[in-house]
Amino acid sequence: MFFASDNTSGAPPEIMAALVRANEGYQRSYGGDALMAEVQARIRDLFDAPEAVVHLVATGTAANALALALFCPPWGAVFCHRHAHVAEDECGAPEFYTAGAKLVLVDGTHGRMAPEALEKAVVRTGTSVHDVQRGMLTVTNVTEAGTVYAPADVAALTALARAHGLPCHMDGARFANALVATGATPAEMTWKAGIDVLSFGGTKNGLLGVEAVVIFDPARAWEFELRRKRAGHLFSKHRYLSAQFAAYLDDGLWLRLAEAANRSAARLAQGLAALPGAGLTHPVQANMVFGWFPADGHARARAAGAAYNDLPGAQPGAVRLVCSWCTTDADVDRFLTLISG
Amino acid sequence: MFFASDNTSGAPPEIMAALVRANEGYQRSYGGDALMAEVQARIRDLFDAPEAVVHLVATGTAANALALALFCPPWGAVFCHRHAHVAEDECGAPEFYTAGAKLVLVDGTHGRMAPEALEKAVVRTGTSVHDVQRGMLTVTNVTEAGTVYAPADVAALTALARAHGLPCHMDGARFANALVATGATPAEMTWKAGIDVLSFGGTKNGLLGVEAVVIFDPARAWEFELRRKRAGHLFSKHRYLSAQFAAYLDDGLWLRLAEAANRSAARLAQGLAALPGAGLTHPVQANMVFGWFPADGHARARAAGAAYNDLPGAQPGAVRLVCSWCTTDADVDRFLTLISG
Amino acid sequence: MFFASDNTSGAPPEIMAALVRANEGYQRSYGGDALMAEVQARIRDLFDAPEAVVHLVATGTAANALALALFCPPWGAVFCHRHAHVAEDECGAPEFYTAGAKLVLVDGTHGRMAPEALEKAVVRTGTSVHDVQRGMLTVTNVTEAGTVYAPADVAALTALARAHGLPCHMDGARFANALVATGATPAEMTWKAGIDVLSFGGTKNGLLGVEAVVIFDPARAWEFELRRKRAGHLFSKHRYLSAQFAAYLDDGLWLRLAEAANRSAARLAQGLAALPGAGLTHPVQANMVFGWFPADGHARARAAGAAYNDLPGAQPGAVRLVCSWCTTDADVDRFLTLISG
Amino acid sequence: MFFASDNTSGAPPEIMAALVRANEGYQRSYGGDALMAEVQARIRDLFDAPEAVVHLVATGTAANALALALFCPPWGAVFCHRHAHVAEDECGAPEFYTAGAKLVLVDGTHGRMAPEALEKAVVRTGTSVHDVQRGMLTVTNVTEAGTVYAPADVAALTALARAHGLPCHMDGARFANALVATGATPAEMTWKAGIDVLSFGGTKNGLLGVEAVVIFDPARAWEFELRRKRAGHLFSKHRYLSAQFAAYLDDGLWLRLAEAANRSAARLAQGLAALPGAGLTHPVQANMVFGWFPADGHARARAAGAAYNDLPGAQPGAVRLVCSWCTTDADVDRFLTLISG
Repeated sequence: MFFASDNTSGAPPEIMAALVRANEGYQRSYGGDALMAEVQARIRDLFDAPEAVVHLVATGTAANALALALFCPPWGAVFCHRHAHVAEDECGAPEFYTAGAKLVLVDGTHGRMAPEALEKAVVRTGTSVHDVQRGMLTVTNVTEAGTVYAPADVAALTALARAHGLPCHMDGARFANALVATGATPAEMTWKAGIDVLSFGGTKNGLLGVEAVVIFDPARAWEFELRRKRAGHLFSKHRYLSAQFAAYLDDGLWLRLAEAANRSAARLAQGLAALPGAGLTHPVQANMVFGWFPADGHARARAAGAAYNDLPGAQPGAVRLVCSWCTTDADVDRFLTLISG
Repeated sequence: MFFASDNTSGAPPEIMAALVRANEGYQRSYGGDALMAEVQARIRDLFDAPEAVVHLVATGTAANALALALFCPPWGAVFCHRHAHVAEDECGAPEFYTAGAKLVLVDGTHGRMAPEALEKAVVRTGTSVHDVQRGMLTVTNVTEAGTVYAPADVAALTALARAHGLPCHMDGARFANALVATGATPAEMTWKAGIDVLSFGGTKNGLLGVEAVVIFDPARAWEFELRRKRAGHLFSKHRYLSAQFAAYLDDGLWLRLAEAANRSAARLAQGLAALPGAGLTHPVQANMVFGWFPADGHARARAAGAAYNDLPGAQPGAVRLVCSWCTTDADVDRFLTLISG
Repeated sequence: MFFASDNTSGAPPEIMAALVRANEGYQRSYGGDALMAEVQARIRDLFDAPEAVVHLVATGTAANALALALFCPPWGAVFCHRHAHVAEDECGAPEFYTAGAKLVLVDGTHGRMAPEALEKAVVRTGTSVHDVQRGMLTVTNVTEAGTVYAPADVAALTALARAHGLPCHMDGARFANALVATGATPAEMTWKAGIDVLSFGGTKNGLLGVEAVVIFDPARAWEFELRRKRAGHLFSKHRYLSAQFAAYLDDGLWLRLAEAANRSAARLAQGLAALPGAGLTHPVQANMVFGWFPADGHARARAAGAAYNDLPGAQPGAVRLVCSWCTTDADVDRFLTLISG
Repeated sequence: MFFASDNTSGAPPEIMAALVRANEGYQRSYGGDALMAEVQARIRDLFDAPEAVVHLVATGTAANALALALFCPPWGAVFCHRHAHVAEDECGAPEFYTAGAKLVLVDGTHGRMAPEALEKAVVRTGTSVHDVQRGMLTVTNVTEAGTVYAPADVAALTALARAHGLPCHMDGARFANALVATGATPAEMTWKAGIDVLSFGGTKNGLLGVEAVVIFDPARAWEFELRRKRAGHLFSKHRYLSAQFAAYLDDGLWLRLAEAANRSAARLAQGLAALPGAGLTHPVQANMVFGWFPADGHARARAAGAAYNDLPGAQPGAVRLVCSWCTTDADVDRFLTLISG
C-alpha cells in the first residue's frame, strides 16, 4: 500500500533486463552508443516528427529546467500554473538554469491553467524596458492535481501564447498517463497542439531515472547539448539511459505501464467516492487521487503500514494517493477496506 | 581492445546484481532510502571521518562543479592545473555552478601542479576590490596525465593554499586508482592531507554512473543539498545510486577494480616502453598510459579494431590508452603484438 | 506641469554647486576620495549607527539588487509587495544579482504589505529540499501607491520576518519623503524597526543619480564592495557621487526637498478630492497622488502640456501624479484649474 | 604631479557647463531626453555608421561587460590579452554578465596580442561538447601597456577571429587617445577593421563618468537595453549622461583632450628615457608611460607629493605614470627634475 509517490516504485522486469543486456561489452560514451540513435529514431517515428531532436537526462527537474533555459532568456517570464512542479518542487531550478527568469503564476481550478487567466497574466507582463519580458509558456500534463489536458485544451493555451510570440513547453513527467487518459497520440498532444519542447517522462512510469527531452525545432539541438554538458547532465556511460528508454518504448511498454497506474487510480477513486465521510478533491483522470476520508480511516491505514501524503489545508483528512505501474488491485482494495472501517 | 576511456566499459556483475536487488519493492525517494544511510556510514568509517557528509550524484562533472560552488564565491579564483578536467572537459560547468568564478591555470609537469607555480599564481591573484579574489584549490588525483599525487604531494599544495585561507577540493574521478597506486588510506589522501571536499569517483571504476561527494565539514551539508536539488541532480529513485555505491564498497570491490585497471596499464606501459620507436610521455602510475608508437603500429591496431585516442601535438604517433577494471591481459598483449609489428 | 515622475526633475542649485566644487583638482578614485569618508561619517551619525557601512551607487535598481543579493542566497525567496518596484520595474534585476532568487508576491491594500499576508506567504514557502527557501523581506517606503509605513508598521513586518530568521531590506528610493511624512528619525525607521540594509535614495529627491546603501552589519561590507565592483557599479571618479550626497545631507537639504514635494502633493490631492467627478485612489501621504478625474479635464490638461501617467485599469481617467522638490504651487493650481474645467 | 591614473582628474569646464545647462527644467527620463537622440545621431555620423546603435552607461566595466554579454554565450570563451582590463581589473564582471563565460588569455609583448598567439589560443579551444566554445574576441586600444593598435593591427586580429566565426569587441576606454596616436578615423579603427561593438570611453578622458557602447549591428539593440536595465545601468535622470557625451563630441573636444594627454606623456617619456639609470618598459604611444628610475628619484618625487603607481616586479623602480587632459608641462617638468636628482 505505497501511495506516497510513483517514484517510490521500482522498475518492471523488462527494464532491468534491458539494463543487464546493455552492460555487455564496450560502448562509446557520452551519447555515442548504438542504442541512442535507435531511441531518437523511434521517438521521431512515434511523434511523427522526423526532424525532432531527442536528448536524455536522468531527472525531471533537469529535463524541465534545461528545456525552459533553451527557450526563455534570463529576462523572460515563464507562465505556469500556480502549483506547477517547476514553481513548487524544484528549489528554483528554472531560475538557476535560465540565469534568473521569473515564473509568473497563473490560476486555474484543478491544476489546469484557465485560458483567460493566462491571457491576463501575459498581458499584464509588460513590454517596456522596465519589465521582465514575456518569455514562454509551460504546461504540465498530467497536472499536479491529477487532471489531464486534452489536446484541444493544450492548443487553447498555446494559441494564446503563440499570439504573443511565446514558445511552449510541456512538462510531461507523466506524459504516458496523459496520453492513456485522453487517447491522444504523441503528436496530437505536442507539436500539433503547439508544443515546441517536451519533457517526456520515464522515471515516474517505471524507469530507474530517465527523461527524454524532445525538441521539435532542430535548430536548438546544439545549444541544448552544450547546456546539458555544462550542467553535468551528459552521462559518460550513456548507454544505460538509452537502454532504459529503448525498452520503455518496446511493444508499447510505456503505455501499458501507464494504463495500469491509471486503472488503479480509477479503482481507488471509485471506492473512495463511495465512502461515507469521504470524497474527491479533483476529478481523477490519470494515476493520482486527491481526496479525503475520516480520521479513523487514517489511523487504521497508517497502522497497517500504508504510505501516502497528507495535504494540510482546509479539508480535514485530505490526502494525495499516487498509483504506479505496480500498484495491485489487492493493494487498492485492502486500502479501501482499511479506511472504510 | 578498448583503450579509449574507462567510461566505455560496463559494470562488474556485483554492481548489476546490487541494482537488481535494489529494485525490489517500494523505497523512500530522494535519498531517504535505507541504503543511503548505510553508504554514508560506511564512507565515514572508511575515511575515519565520523562527521563527514556524503551525497551522491550521477556524473563527475556534477560532483566537481557542486563541490567547487560550495566553497568558492562567484568572485573567487579556483586554482587548478592547466589541463585539469574542470578546466578542459566540462564545458564551463564550474563557471556555471559557481555563478562565474574564474579558473586560474597552474603549470606543472606530468599533470601535477608545481607548488612554486601554485604559490606564484595565488600571490599574483590580487586582493584589491578590482581583483577576482583568491578562492580555492582543486587537485585532480589521478591527474589528467595519469600520474598520481602521494599524500605528501597533496599536503604540499594544500599547505600553500591554506596559508592563504583557501579551502581545498580533490577531483577523485579515479580516486581508487590513486589509492591503490600510492598505498594511502582514504583519510591520508584527503582530510589528513588538507582536503575539505572530495569527488569520490565510481563511474570510471565500474559503476553505471555514481559519484560520492564527501564533505568533511558538516556545516556545509544543507547548502550542498539545496544546490544539488536546484541543479536537478537529486534523484527521485535514489535507491539505484545508493545500491551501486554500497556494492562498490562491499569487500573492497572498488579497490580490486582499480588494482586490475592499474595492473593492466602497467603491463601495457612496460610493453610499450620496450618497443623500438615507441616510448612513454608521462610516468605510468595508475590506469592511463600516455606514449607514442610508429605509424605502422597504428595502422595495424586500428585495422584490428583497437579503440584509443590520438593526441595531436608535437610527438607524432602520440596516444592516450586507458585501462579499466575489465581490461584483460589478452587485450593488452594482443594490442602490443599488433603495434610492435 | 510635470507630474510624470520625480525623476524628470533636475537637481537644486546646492547640488550643482557641490559638483562644481568637487571638480577642482585631483582626487583619489574608486571611493578613496576625501568626501566619501565624510559621507559615511555623517550617515552613521544621522542614523545613530556608528558601525554602519555606507556605499554609493548611481541607480536605485543597483542599490536594491545589490542589497538583496547581499542577504539572499540564489535559492531564497524574497518576500515583497505584489507591486513593489523590485517586482515590477527592474526587468528582473533582483533575479540577476541574486543568481536566481524568487520574488514571492505579498498582497496588501494601498501598496502596503498586510502582516497576515506576509505571514501566510512565508509559511507557505516550504523548508524541504524541494522548496525555494525562505530568504528575506523587502519593504518599500514610500510604497509604490504613495502611502507610507510608520516605524511601527515596518516593525510589525520585520518582526514576522525575523521570527523566521529572515533579514530585512528597505527600498527607500523615497526615504526622505517617508521620514518627512511620519516624523520618524532615520534610526527609528530602519535598524530600530528591524531593517538590516537600506537603499537610501537621492535621485528622486533632487540628486543627478546617487543612492546610498546603508548596511547596519559591518561584517557584510567587503562582500558588498566585491559585488558592486563586479557589477560595474564602482565609479572611478567617485568624488562626484560623494559630493552630491554630502551636499544632500548639508543643513537638512534632503529633508527640505522632500517636504516641498510632499507639500505639493498634499495641495494637489486636496484640490483633486474636491473636484466633482474626481477622487483619490490611495491615501496621499508623501509626494505621489493616485486618483482620477473626468475625460474633459484630461483633454484640457494635455492640451496645455501637462505630463503625467495614465493608469489603465478599472477606474476610467485614473492617473499617477508625482510631485518633486521643484513642483510649484503655481503648477499645482494651474493643473487643478485645467482639470476642473 | 598626479600620475596615478587618468581617473584622478576632474572634468574640463566645457563638460561642467554642459551639465549645468542640462539641469534646467524637466526632461524625459531613462534615455528619452532630447540630448540622447542627438548623441546617437552624432556618433553615427562620426563613425560613418548610419545604423549603429548607441547606449550610454556610467562605467567602463559596465560598458565592457554588457558588450561581452551581448555577443558571447555563457559557454563561450572570450579571447583577450593576458593583461587586459577585463581579465585583471574588473573583479570578474565579464563572468558575471555573461553568466559564466571563460576568459582565455592570449600572450603578446607590450600589451598587444600577437596574432599567432591568438590563432593558437582559438584553435586550442575545442569545438566538442566537452569544451567551452569559441566565443568572441576583445581587443583593448589603447592597451594596458600604453601601446596602440593601428587599424591594420586590429584588422589582423579580427580577421583571425572572424575566420572562426567570432564577433569582435574593442575596449576603447582610451579610444580617443588611440585615434589621436594613430591618426585613424573612428570608422577605420572600428567597423572597417572588423569590430562589432565598441566601448567608447569618456571617463578617463575628461567626463565625470560616461561611456558609450556603440553596436554596429542594430539587431542587438533591444537585448542590450534589457541587459542594461536589468543590471541597474539605465539611468533615470539620463540627461546628465547625454549632456556630458554631447559636450564631449562638440567641436572635437574629445580629441583635443586626448591630444593634450598624449603630448604630456610623450614629454614625460622623452625626459625619462634621457635620465641616467632610467628607461622605458614599453613604447610610449598614448597617455601612459611605463618605465623605471632610481630609488633616490622616487624618494624625492614622493616627498614632493607626486602620486603614481609602483609596479612591483622584476625591474626595480618600475612605475606606471598616466597623463590626463589636465596634466601640465610644468607638472611633467617638475617631476622630471625631481627624479633626476
